[in-house]
Amino acid sequence: MAEQVRDVVERYVKLVGSGPTEEIVNLYAADATVEDPIGTPIKHGHAEIREFYEVLGKLDRETELKVETVRIAGNHAAFMFTIVTKFGDQSFTLMPIDVMEFNDEGKIINMRAYWSPEDMSSQAV
Amino acid sequence: MAEQVRDVVERYVKLVGSGPTEEIVNLYAADATVEDPIGTPIKHGHAEIREFYEVLGKLDRETELKVETVRIAGNHAAFMFTIVTKFGDQSFTLMPIDVMEFNDEGKIINMRAYWSPEDMSSQAV
Repeated sequence: MAEQVRDVVERYVKLVGSGPTEEIVNLYAADATVEDPIGTPIKHGHAEIREFYEVLGKLDRETELKVETVRIAGNHAAFMFTIVTKFGDQSFTLMPIDVMEFNDEGKIINMRAYWSPEDMSSQAV
Repeated sequence: MAEQVRDVVERYVKLVGSGPTEEIVNLYAADATVEDPIGTPIKHGHAEIREFYEVLGKLDRETELKVETVRIAGNHAAFMFTIVTKFGDQSFTLMPIDVMEFNDEGKIINMRAYWSPEDMSSQAV
């Protein structure tokens, strides 16, 4: 189970950086929930989850997972990664901690992201 | 709220490294739960939580919180820290990711820890 969970985490972070959106959606179970960041409205099911990630798909962005920051406990994972997005002449860097729970098929059944706007830094590119 | 949450996280990690146990227990609400690591039996309430941390209190140990790995979203926090314990001529290093939820008084109402035995490394001291 741990290897399967780690593999999905690695694929997730890579896909968040490059897409396609549909492959991100397919990492989730049909009735999964996403709360990113915690405190915002929860997305429920593939249609709402797709809508959430489609916004990302329109951005010039890249991601990096530091493998040493993935922690797995049974069918749960917590991990930190970096996402850099570019808007015009600014780049925005965010390193959230995401937690995920998986079902026995290795699909994500819920994801919650820990970050706040203060964790985002910007710089000219 | 974010400052209060960050302060409790910093105090928590420091106390886990040095005690006393009772001050750790007092960071928790009376009916709080602890699941460390996820998948093990959940401790519920101050008595069970005290029993859990008393084991730590008997060990020669130290902790370090890297402040750059604390992420706060509303009344939730996720953070990674290092705990090193010594048994005889061996030291054991673990860097879990813990997540906590807080009530409006800044008390922890639940904690869950993401790690597995494979994340622990040992070395001679």
